[in-house]
Amino acid sequence: MRPSQRNSDALREIRLTRHYTKHAEGSVLVEFGDTKVICTASVDESVPGFLKGKGKGWVTAEYGMLPRSTGSRMRREAAAGKQSGRTQEIQRLIGRSLRAVVDMEKLGERQIQIDCDVIQADGGTRTASITGAFVALHDAISGLLAQGKLSESPLRDFVAAISVGIHQGEVVLDLDYLEDSDCETDMNVVMTGNGRFVEVQGTAEGEPFSEEEMASMMRLAKQGIAELISLQKQALGV
Amino acid sequence: MRPSQRNSDALREIRLTRHYTKHAEGSVLVEFGDTKVICTASVDESVPGFLKGKGKGWVTAEYGMLPRSTGSRMRREAAAGKQSGRTQEIQRLIGRSLRAVVDMEKLGERQIQIDCDVIQADGGTRTASITGAFVALHDAISGLLAQGKLSESPLRDFVAAISVGIHQGEVVLDLDYLEDSDCETDMNVVMTGNGRFVEVQGTAEGEPFSEEEMASMMRLAKQGIAELISLQKQALGV
Amino acid sequence: MRPSQRNSDALREIRLTRHYTKHAEGSVLVEFGDTKVICTASVDESVPGFLKGKGKGWVTAEYGMLPRSTGSRMRREAAAGKQSGRTQEIQRLIGRSLRAVVDMEKLGERQIQIDCDVIQADGGTRTASITGAFVALHDAISGLLAQGKLSESPLRDFVAAISVGIHQGEVVLDLDYLEDSDCETDMNVVMTGNGRFVEVQGTAEGEPFSEEEMASMMRLAKQGIAELISLQKQALGV
Amino acid sequence: MRPSQRNSDALREIRLTRHYTKHAEGSVLVEFGDTKVICTASVDESVPGFLKGKGKGWVTAEYGMLPRSTGSRMRREAAAGKQSGRTQEIQRLIGRSLRAVVDMEKLGERQIQIDCDVIQADGGTRTASITGAFVALHDAISGLLAQGKLSESPLRDFVAAISVGIHQGEVVLDLDYLEDSDCETDMNVVMTGNGRFVEVQGTAEGEPFSEEEMASMMRLAKQGIAELISLQKQALGV
Amino acid sequence: MRPSQRNSDALREIRLTRHYTKHAEGSVLVEFGDTKVICTASVDESVPGFLKGKGKGWVTAEYGMLPRSTGSRMRREAAAGKQSGRTQEIQRLIGRSLRAVVDMEKLGERQIQIDCDVIQADGGTRTASITGAFVALHDAISGLLAQGKLSESPLRDFVAAISVGIHQGEVVLDLDYLEDSDCETDMNVVMTGNGRFVEVQGTAEGEPFSEEEMASMMRLAKQGIAELISLQKQALGV
Amino acid sequence: MRPSQRNSDALREIRLTRHYTKHAEGSVLVEFGDTKVICTASVDESVPGFLKGKGKGWVTAEYGMLPRSTGSRMRREAAAGKQSGRTQEIQRLIGRSLRAVVDMEKLGERQIQIDCDVIQADGGTRTASITGAFVALHDAISGLLAQGKLSESPLRDFVAAISVGIHQGEVVLDLDYLEDSDCETDMNVVMTGNGRFVEVQGTAEGEPFSEEEMASMMRLAKQGIAELISLQKQALGV
Repeated sequence: MRPSQRNSDALREIRLTRHYTKHAEGSVLVEFGDTKVICTASVDESVPGFLKGKGKGWVTAEYGMLPRSTGSRMRREAAAGKQSGRTQEIQRLIGRSLRAVVDMEKLGERQIQIDCDVIQADGGTRTASITGAFVALHDAISGLLAQGKLSESPLRDFVAAISVGIHQGEVVLDLDYLEDSDCETDMNVVMTGNGRFVEVQGTAEGEPFSEEEMASMMRLAKQGIAELISLQKQALGV
Repeated sequence: MRPSQRNSDALREIRLTRHYTKHAEGSVLVEFGDTKVICTASVDESVPGFLKGKGKGWVTAEYGMLPRSTGSRMRREAAAGKQSGRTQEIQRLIGRSLRAVVDMEKLGERQIQIDCDVIQADGGTRTASITGAFVALHDAISGLLAQGKLSESPLRDFVAAISVGIHQGEVVLDLDYLEDSDCETDMNVVMTGNGRFVEVQGTAEGEPFSEEEMASMMRLAKQGIAELISLQKQALGV
Repeated sequence: MRPSQRNSDALREIRLTRHYTKHAEGSVLVEFGDTKVICTASVDESVPGFLKGKGKGWVTAEYGMLPRSTGSRMRREAAAGKQSGRTQEIQRLIGRSLRAVVDMEKLGERQIQIDCDVIQADGGTRTASITGAFVALHDAISGLLAQGKLSESPLRDFVAAISVGIHQGEVVLDLDYLEDSDCETDMNVVMTGNGRFVEVQGTAEGEPFSEEEMASMMRLAKQGIAELISLQKQALGV
Repeated sequence: MRPSQRNSDALREIRLTRHYTKHAEGSVLVEFGDTKVICTASVDESVPGFLKGKGKGWVTAEYGMLPRSTGSRMRREAAAGKQSGRTQEIQRLIGRSLRAVVDMEKLGERQIQIDCDVIQADGGTRTASITGAFVALHDAISGLLAQGKLSESPLRDFVAAISVGIHQGEVVLDLDYLEDSDCETDMNVVMTGNGRFVEVQGTAEGEPFSEEEMASMMRLAKQGIAELISLQKQALGV
Repeated sequence: MRPSQRNSDALREIRLTRHYTKHAEGSVLVEFGDTKVICTASVDESVPGFLKGKGKGWVTAEYGMLPRSTGSRMRREAAAGKQSGRTQEIQRLIGRSLRAVVDMEKLGERQIQIDCDVIQADGGTRTASITGAFVALHDAISGLLAQGKLSESPLRDFVAAISVGIHQGEVVLDLDYLEDSDCETDMNVVMTGNGRFVEVQGTAEGEPFSEEEMASMMRLAKQGIAELISLQKQALGV
Repeated sequence: MRPSQRNSDALREIRLTRHYTKHAEGSVLVEFGDTKVICTASVDESVPGFLKGKGKGWVTAEYGMLPRSTGSRMRREAAAGKQSGRTQEIQRLIGRSLRAVVDMEKLGERQIQIDCDVIQADGGTRTASITGAFVALHDAISGLLAQGKLSESPLRDFVAAISVGIHQGEVVLDLDYLEDSDCETDMNVVMTGNGRFVEVQGTAEGEPFSEEEMASMMRLAKQGIAELISLQKQALGV
């Protein structure tokens, strides 16, 4: 039995609360059980230097955790004077995942900056971030369409992410902190609405895993992401 | 008339939500109208180097704003690699304000670390932070008392903070962003439950102010803080 | 009796030595007793980015202490790789104080950069800095007028600063290091020549202070600043 | 046809030159075609703080590129004052990959520090680094065994890494720079000698990939890694 | 007898391997005995800001050591977040030495960036760097001439560098690590092909040195540099 | 004729003012004409980590320039967040020069920290710093002897520094800023009281220099340093 009493293929309770804060063009509180992340999408009517004058847009992401979002307090990265390797890895992953479903020509010469800030952590902050950030991005783009700044949506598909892993010999979906800190393998999977892969990042924390285990994990991830995308659609009313 | 239609001596709607996140020993969402700050208190059973072996405790604070807590996105301080002068000023102020009501001998050789993170800003983030942080600190100390780690509370009094200022010639209480960005004078006042001053920081943004204006602002602040402390007591059920 | 044998309302011996170094457009050695600060004003015929093309000028300030200006050696900030929170607070205060008496339209699109470097510290370095920096600024502006780069002075008034505090129960003026490190309350006040307040920053180091003590401190500060401004005028021969 | 005229399942020419530099306990020049990386293993008879007194060892890695190892010169990270997110991602991956085959209890309280420095880059620097670093690690451990500091090897298995990807619709092995900069999907796979997975990191650069493509890539990687491990064994003479 | 059995006026074996890596416009592996440095010259068709529009070029240099190029591992400067004072001193010296023989008007508005990276250190890394970097620079310039980007060589002369010192009372040429770490005086000398001095940097590590010793060292350096320049010419086939 | 009307072998007016500031164990204002540097020596009864428990002391130095010590304002290094390469080169030179005349065993396990801060620059700040710092160091050591913390002076000799150079074809002593910015060769020489060399650092800014010019410069430096050491003795009354 999983520590949370869930079935091996059960997601935690997922909530997507739109318009969570008032300033951002998209602002979503995403909850995967006790993991809570504020995802905002900010529209910037200019692009980074390397894209100036090319008629293409950009989507980028930053990630952070409040110092006491975790069981014991972590050092504040702004005070430490740098972002950790883990933070950079995660924010690069979020950015790549979202860019995979955006047509940059259609977005035009503007940038959408995603911020994912974890206010409470219980495992799966990166997958919750990607899943919530997509909804914030969708809201920001709807705003641009409503204002007439875009005539056609640059979104090519939906995108969401989930973790799968091997915990006490069993392939499980959506690991919480207890499972995550005690699993043999942890894999984060990012997929689109049409069931194709954008990112697969699997790490054997303990025993290396086999081809069959890999395939099982992929299958479970696929199912979980289908559920998440259905929840995104429901939240967005589309 | 004030932009918010409030009377000159009216606070915004104040809310103090305790146990807002689950990990911290004290965790409070404080709202001064649209200004929303998560304040956590983390107990650390050790002290900074300069206090080792002296039998005394310490209270310190850090402050941050989510990049899109504001009308236009600010650069993330962790990415910039340093905290701004403004951030440092505010976190030093929060720390001093709380230490003013804590008996460090009674706290014993442990540190309480306060984190104030603004998730939505509409003026007055530092006064909201101090007011909310005191409640988080109170909860953390209650926990230490309940666990028998402290036999007597080290809290000597309550403490809260409010801004006063001169806006369009009128002395007003608890300025929101619209007033703050257009006022002649802005003053932040920190007071204890017994009506004495811990900090007074007034700045003439436009025209310098007179002794009489100063006295009026002090009076208004005193009244506002009495209200805030009454709300703190109500939230804490004491 | 005060450690320095001064009356409670007595300033230390104040000296303002103009043209202290040869390169800067304004260069003043200010001494408040044993506190000695070199204040220079450097004219830069350009403005920061946010002011470009607006026809307005800017005044900004930086502050530093020589590592052995103090009783025990402090770490050199350039070697540490950052300015402390205290340094940033002080330099922001100096900049705001001077800007309060400068008409930025009249200054035109140029910047005056103030540097205050403490070569010997004995309490009150920030108030000495503001008081000396104003004289250096005045000299720099006189130079611009003499060269015909300005036709009218952008200075609207004089400005000076002094500390007041409560030391052993008594309200005292211009605290030296011995008093400063042992006072109940320390307040820095910045005022203009016409007797109005620009900045008031009071902190209860020990016991919080009352409204009456606040009023006494303000009165004493007002008197001290009138004396300082008279000394500035004498030094400038105006 | 691939730009390099290789078959889709062909590795580039692989060379592993041991004892490449004289100071390090293990020192290997690894070449995957035109990609050349110096991998050194340095034995440190102490462990990081978090492992002190636990009787366990540690293996960690750092990665860098000479500024002109690439087609156009990159900024030197030491001069820039920080390692890029990409650098940190890669060095974390190298460290995790090697730790997966080391028994930390058997290694004892000492650390082996891997350095992978790219002197010429043509795609696949991270997979070359892992493959070469394992050989350097093996040499360092053989040295500890020869000196009697270890009585039993802490190595549980071999480990190597290869990239696979989808280039112009075809699944290919060991992408060089030309393919890498123009592929639809790029996947780095780390496997042990017994054919199990340690890390799988796949990214759709263009079109997301299907479950079938994923499986094909995994199969090709498995074959490539078997070849690499055979080359490692040959180089080590085991 | 010297630890290396060399005569007091003997250089170590010197090798200059051109075209060592494939991307750079000039790429040389220079070996002074066991000291091995990769020197690359990268042509950048733009100049630093202070030279824009002046019709003049620039040559600049950076220096680094692989962490395990030395007997015990050094901290990686990119990870430490800054270059040491020693590194900066050396790279400034390399840059000045090369600029001494380049006619910046003839070079035209372009920059040549030298990178010297030590892969194995055994004393004399800075003199090897200068000697090898000149050859890389020469190759880069030959390339510009061949492409017709330059019609005339901006090189005014050759330049090379050698160390001399006093070891166990004897004046010796080209100190290796064993001598360097145990010498009384260490002097680095940079000279041109016509036998004039560009840089002389002598430091008494132990006993200060006399005018006569200084003269002996200069004479020995002059001879050594003549040999080095002859080797440079041979390597370049000129 | 030199711009300053001095003879080629004439020093500028040299002043050494002891006890310039009140806190440091040694505090000297050194003036070489218009170049003015505050040199302090601070005694620290502990040593850096690498010397702990070895019974030996250490002397180290830091150097800085006030932002407007120069003709146009330089960026404050503390604000820039790092010391320039030039600053580091100079402070390393000052430290080495002073250590050359100190017997570290006799100094015992304590550190003397030198700070050289330029308040006005007109060429030769590093030579003035070394010359003044020696006097501050002497005073600090006299204090330790007077307090009985040392029974015997660890100073083995005096040390001073001067620049020589080739200006408009003539070998000149003690270059001021006008000469320095327009010379062909600039050489800084550090010598002891007994006329031996501690450091020689010569750079051809324009035309490389010959062996004969080198010898002339050395001779002139020797004479200048003899004068400086005589002035140091006079200032110290020894």
